[in-house]
Amino acid sequence: SFSAIIISEASQCSINGLPLVRNISEIPQDNYGRGGLSHSTVAGSVLHGMKEVEVWLQTYAPGSRTPIHRHSCEEVFVVLKGSGTLYLAPSSHMKYPGNPQEFSIFPNSTFNVPVNDAHQIANTDEREDLQVLVMISRPPVKVFIYADWFMPHTASKLKFPYYWDEQCLQPPPQKDEL
Amino acid sequence: SFSAIIISEASQCSINGLPLVRNISEIPQDNYGRGGLSHSTVAGSVLHGMKEVEVWLQTYAPGSRTPIHRHSCEEVFVVLKGSGTLYLAPSSHMKYPGNPQEFSIFPNSTFNVPVNDAHQIANTDEREDLQVLVMISRPPVKVFIYADWFMPHTASKLKFPYYWDEQCLQPPPQKDEL
Ligand SMILES: [Zn+2]
Ligand SMILES: [Zn+2]
Repeated sequence: SFSAIIISEASQCSINGLPLVRNISEIPQDNYGRGGLSHSTVAGSVLHGMKEVEVWLQTYAPGSRTPIHRHSCEEVFVVLKGSGTLYLAPSSHMKYPGNPQEFSIFPNSTFNVPVNDAHQIANTDEREDLQVLVMISRPPVKVFIYADWFMPHTASKLKFPYYWDEQCLQPPPQKDEL
Repeated sequence: SFSAIIISEASQCSINGLPLVRNISEIPQDNYGRGGLSHSTVAGSVLHGMKEVEVWLQTYAPGSRTPIHRHSCEEVFVVLKGSGTLYLAPSSHMKYPGNPQEFSIFPNSTFNVPVNDAHQIANTDEREDLQVLVMISRPPVKVFIYADWFMPHTASKLKFPYYWDEQCLQPPPQKDEL
């Protein structure tokens, strides 16, 4: 029924009723339309009322990767399992990111992405999943996406709310509005 | 020699020369005078130039615990190994924290500590180490320490810089100053 849907959506998007200590393996995960991705919001702005930090657990299947993107928050990665590549185009005076530097990432490694630098994380291993914990500041995240490394910064496209924040941050579309 | 000491301290306290991708198991760890603790700053304000988030890896031997403390930053824990107890005294109108609530923490669990609530993390297991990743906002952390749960908030003692920030955040004492 209609009221049941409302209640169900509210409980997915509210801190009310969530236990303080949560089992990470019971937190909902989704690929948000991105093949090879599994994302869980471990501690989130929209879901858990965080205001200054947000924590994600993400798994990338072999061959899968984030979009090329930038954001004006700080971001720290801790690699729990698997390996891959960080592509990073340090800020410059060019109008586009340009060819990125490549860094190998490996189990039990950590790195932080400088604010506003265009970057991409890829599972470049052929067999193993890449699993990372991601910490960001200033949630919810505002992401600018590039189609490629030579797209001008000004042409990169803001995706906000980001995929995993969409359901709870945005009011549902009012289809029957007259 | 004197100049050698200066160089050694500078290199321990500077981001210069640190690789972008770091092996967490090679990051220096110390107990900072607290028995049973092992602390590594995975991504830090003082050490790595972080301005908005900081990440720690901490291991607590059986029976060891944090002081009872509060801070006005957000703090998220992810339990990597072992189990223990979170003691949490939610903010109230009392002049002291009062008897805390107790929460079991377990492998692959997560929780966040509400801003300014007095709390303590303890490894209450008798055999296994408790290992946690800790994320805080607003680094470097400013901690108020309580001797017990009934010490008035106003009597709690500010410890700043905190133990692991002391060496690099504070200028060395000028013993020979006249
Ligand atoms: Zn990013
Ligand atoms: Zn704390």
